[in-house]
Amino acid sequence: MSLNSATTDAISLTFAALADPTRRAILARLALGQTSVTELAAPFEMSMPAISRHLKVLEHAGLISRAREAQWRPCRLTPEPMKQAAEWLDAYRQYWELSFDRLDDYLQVMKAKETKRGRKSR
Amino acid sequence: MSLNSATTDAISLTFAALADPTRRAILARLALGQTSVTELAAPFEMSMPAISRHLKVLEHAGLISRAREAQWRPCRLTPEPMKQAAEWLDAYRQYWELSFDRLDDYLQVMKAKETKRGRKSR
Repeated sequence: MSLNSATTDAISLTFAALADPTRRAILARLALGQTSVTELAAPFEMSMPAISRHLKVLEHAGLISRAREAQWRPCRLTPEPMKQAAEWLDAYRQYWELSFDRLDDYLQVMKAKETKRGRKSR
Repeated sequence: MSLNSATTDAISLTFAALADPTRRAILARLALGQTSVTELAAPFEMSMPAISRHLKVLEHAGLISRAREAQWRPCRLTPEPMKQAAEWLDAYRQYWELSFDRLDDYLQVMKAKETKRGRKSR
């Protein structure tokens, strides 16, 4: 697998775009409705060029789009790429659920032992 | 938000680790059971140091762990961080489902128009 495939496949672009708290906060804001770049930038202590770079990463991953019709070119959420990312993760759901179940089993055994010990010391 | 928070919060580490096809392939292999680094590296046209770097990214994100007891130190899947990533994505499920529903509505309308037009031209 080349370095190029790592930077260009759609699901990698999605995960990379989501790997930043500012970009996730931008998506959370856009989930409330479309808005201007200026309004999007307002909550962050960040320069406009820095915000623009984040928006470009999100746009390149297909997670947001900029309207062409309106003069203020609002940003809006285009969440479809998240579906593919969620489906990829879903294939592993059984593994983390199993892990938690095992931990739960272990804790149940420990609790039972503790109760037994408690009874003996009475 | 500082650059530091972007590189250290758990969910960002998880998404960043998943943003690479080689690392996702390694996780898919480990879902079948624990194995050695040599066996993990076998399907990839990649140097051992390159594979080791990928494993370090996965280990740093908590997605894999290396056993300490066995001399061959097998790698195993520790999928718990994926749960947090899946939960983050789940909050957006309604948005991508809505988008697809809207597309579906649009296609239904287009189909109805097409049928109407077809009837007129008969």
